[in-house]
Amino acid sequence: MTAYSPRLGRLIEALRRLPGVGPKSAQRMALHLLQRDREGAEYLARALGEALSGIERCPRTRMFCEPAHCGFCSASRAKAGQLCVVENPADLIAIENSTPYRGRYFVLGGRLSPLDGIGPEALGLDLLAEQLADGTVQELIIATNPTVEGEATAHYIAELARARNVKVTRIAHGVPMGGELEYVDGGTLSHAFAGRQLL
Amino acid sequence: MTAYSPRLGRLIEALRRLPGVGPKSAQRMALHLLQRDREGAEYLARALGEALSGIERCPRTRMFCEPAHCGFCSASRAKAGQLCVVENPADLIAIENSTPYRGRYFVLGGRLSPLDGIGPEALGLDLLAEQLADGTVQELIIATNPTVEGEATAHYIAELARARNVKVTRIAHGVPMGGELEYVDGGTLSHAFAGRQLL
Ligand SMILES: [Zn+2]
Ligand SMILES: [Zn+2]
Repeated sequence: MTAYSPRLGRLIEALRRLPGVGPKSAQRMALHLLQRDREGAEYLARALGEALSGIERCPRTRMFCEPAHCGFCSASRAKAGQLCVVENPADLIAIENSTPYRGRYFVLGGRLSPLDGIGPEALGLDLLAEQLADGTVQELIIATNPTVEGEATAHYIAELARARNVKVTRIAHGVPMGGELEYVDGGTLSHAFAGRQLL
Repeated sequence: MTAYSPRLGRLIEALRRLPGVGPKSAQRMALHLLQRDREGAEYLARALGEALSGIERCPRTRMFCEPAHCGFCSASRAKAGQLCVVENPADLIAIENSTPYRGRYFVLGGRLSPLDGIGPEALGLDLLAEQLADGTVQELIIATNPTVEGEATAHYIAELARARNVKVTRIAHGVPMGGELEYVDGGTLSHAFAGRQLL
């Protein structure tokens, strides 16, 4: 027993597939588009269609890319000889937006998790191993998340690189800039303390 | 300077047109669809297209409807002889979902606001006046919001109905069920007090 007409009901149901969107906000979004922004609805439908038809996984970085415009496989990025490994596309975007790093990337698409059946193949580590073996990488920068599984993944990848004589670094973890020791969680604080550096 | 490829950038931009979606959540939504729910993205694109092509404003209730399935103009609804006026489609849906009312509706699409140039024509009040004059309405239920402009709109519509000898009622306003007097705002409390009823 619902007040939605069939197409309105389907639109609300479809909007609920977006992460973080519950029934109330899906209804608000649908009514907003129909009432005040039909042009926005058209734009969104078109953008979704174009994304689905034109965005692929780059066979080299495993990042989403548009074959004709893959911004992450350029010759200038390769020149630096650095390869940064991240878990997810969002991590790559965060590094690209916040740091001056402009080398190559490798997106795992997850982290090793034997209990969930996520092994080295699922993360494309054979592909990574090939890239580490071809002599183009001087430094492998591991930027997996500082969780138990992220650390285990970092350790596994570090071994892959060392076996191929590639220098391995790991991004630093510690007290966040602007954070106050008093409020930082204990694990982070003890990690930061153990990782203290000479000034 | 962005890490987004053109189509990914456009998808994020399009998602930001949804109400309540900022840059961070738009990025999260876009990556989620591409990474984990391409089927959901297809479903959403299709639902948007079908909504745009198949949902119209009902010429009678001014609610969104699908001409072949207008659930708000049925003969059974007309039989009751009641017409409920609301400001927005979301108000109609709330009444339909929470009350046993199953009469007809009229959606204003806003409220009178002379300063913003929203007059009686913009709210379709000529159309409402016609319906009030055709003898099918025994009771006009006004369910505009209890704001200054909503009250002014209610007052204006009540006059329209009285001039056509149609009985007018207004939904009750007062302390919300489960609310505590202590925490209710003063305006609501004094309204509730003045509107006290004999037990
Ligand atoms: Zn690429
Ligand atoms: Zn209708």
